[in-house]
Amino acid sequence: MTSEHSLDLATRLDRSASDRLAGTTSDAYWNFAGPFGGYIAALFMRAVMDDPRRLGPPVAETVNYCAPLAKGHFEIAVRLQRSGKATQHWSLELHQAGIVAATASIVCANRRDTFAHTVTTMPDVPPPEAVAVAPAPERLPWLGAYEFRFIEGGPRFGEPARDAGDLASPVTRLWLRDRPDRALDYVALASLADCFILRLVQMRGTLPPMSTVSMTTYFHATPDEIERQGSAPLLGVATAQRFHANFHDQSMELWSRDGRLLANGMQTVWYRE
Amino acid sequence: MTSEHSLDLATRLDRSASDRLAGTTSDAYWNFAGPFGGYIAALFMRAVMDDPRRLGPPVAETVNYCAPLAKGHFEIAVRLQRSGKATQHWSLELHQAGIVAATASIVCANRRDTFAHTVTTMPDVPPPEAVAVAPAPERLPWLGAYEFRFIEGGPRFGEPARDAGDLASPVTRLWLRDRPDRALDYVALASLADCFILRLVQMRGTLPPMSTVSMTTYFHATPDEIERQGSAPLLGVATAQRFHANFHDQSMELWSRDGRLLANGMQTVWYRE
Repeated sequence: MTSEHSLDLATRLDRSASDRLAGTTSDAYWNFAGPFGGYIAALFMRAVMDDPRRLGPPVAETVNYCAPLAKGHFEIAVRLQRSGKATQHWSLELHQAGIVAATASIVCANRRDTFAHTVTTMPDVPPPEAVAVAPAPERLPWLGAYEFRFIEGGPRFGEPARDAGDLASPVTRLWLRDRPDRALDYVALASLADCFILRLVQMRGTLPPMSTVSMTTYFHATPDEIERQGSAPLLGVATAQRFHANFHDQSMELWSRDGRLLANGMQTVWYRE
Repeated sequence: MTSEHSLDLATRLDRSASDRLAGTTSDAYWNFAGPFGGYIAALFMRAVMDDPRRLGPPVAETVNYCAPLAKGHFEIAVRLQRSGKATQHWSLELHQAGIVAATASIVCANRRDTFAHTVTTMPDVPPPEAVAVAPAPERLPWLGAYEFRFIEGGPRFGEPARDAGDLASPVTRLWLRDRPDRALDYVALASLADCFILRLVQMRGTLPPMSTVSMTTYFHATPDEIERQGSAPLLGVATAQRFHANFHDQSMELWSRDGRLLANGMQTVWYRE
């Protein structure tokens, strides 16, 4: 089952050397001028998850988007920088036609029971069954690869741009999962972390040239929590703090169906005007 | 003046090749088993700020702490991965005695006037003049390299550990700056981003073995805002969301004296028990 899901097909990597993997882009995750950023994050995560040297589950991933990835073949270079008893550091590069399209760092860890505490509880929202699935727009394939149930702050595509005095809230809350649905794993979680419409679009209702430049995701979910989630929708929350001089930040949280914070993180987004 | 500040002395790098810099650790920024993480972030930032190929100011920095840095010499390898009209991507490694002690990625950018908006305003707090400077503890040199004026959530060193039912708030708000004071620049801002006592210590009042594993800072401040800040204190805010299975997240904001969000970011912290 799982092996035939579009995410698994799209992130299949063939090992050409111990530190070199080859893959091919998938149309299923295509955005405007390349795959959506979450797909690149998933590729890097796949490269580390498949590596026999891996210590344990990932706890952090940073992806830097250097150049658009074109349709076709690419290679991923994997370097294990340092491996200890508690943590392990990986550096990765995605190459295509002699260009570095993206770089990444991933930290894996040996995770055991310790003091545990969650400061904030999951937002009080209607269950996924009570929220309508948004129709999949045809223009951007990657939006069809996920199921979006917007609770607050749904997309405003097609509505007129707002002026600075009439901005929408930067906050979006939604239930989301892979479409077709698929049991959660770290590869899927890495991509789901980038499944939020960029906050500038959300606030202004415009679509200027823009793209994520760097994204960091922290994985709180341990393997038992990943398994418990199965293919249920995740609660996603996104917001932003400052838009200024071509860049804005964007932060996100992903909660399990049963109220655990599975991941959170931030990204910085470039925009032209 | 600036050239003799302890931060400048501690981050002085000598170029041995176009992509290779050499430096020596400074006792002024020492923590328990190595320099405090903000010093490493400052070193990487210095390496890029000093590079003649740099496009413009930094917008993002991720530092991965792979192994403790010992006192003495080290080298930084700098690689310009990709340089475009709008953004520029750097990868860096800090080597000592054949070991990778830390890796980093830094994104620089060409920043111009665009749509600008700040979603949240600076927290309403007393001005720095109205808040007492905390006495510098003697045990940890790096704490003496900064001036801390705690508004809320000051350190609890020496008090008994609390149990899980009696945790302190994870939130700290304080005014902070270099000691002695020094005009702000991106090197200082990179280190100030890590000037918060780890949230586990703050909440529990214990000091188990623990260290930052990966830290990402987003620089909203443009050069004119850096210059306007001068050597005034910055308002810092730190909090955390989840402590679980050896790791917790920590997020931070740094605001200028006149209410602009200069930087924000997150880190993940390993702890033993």
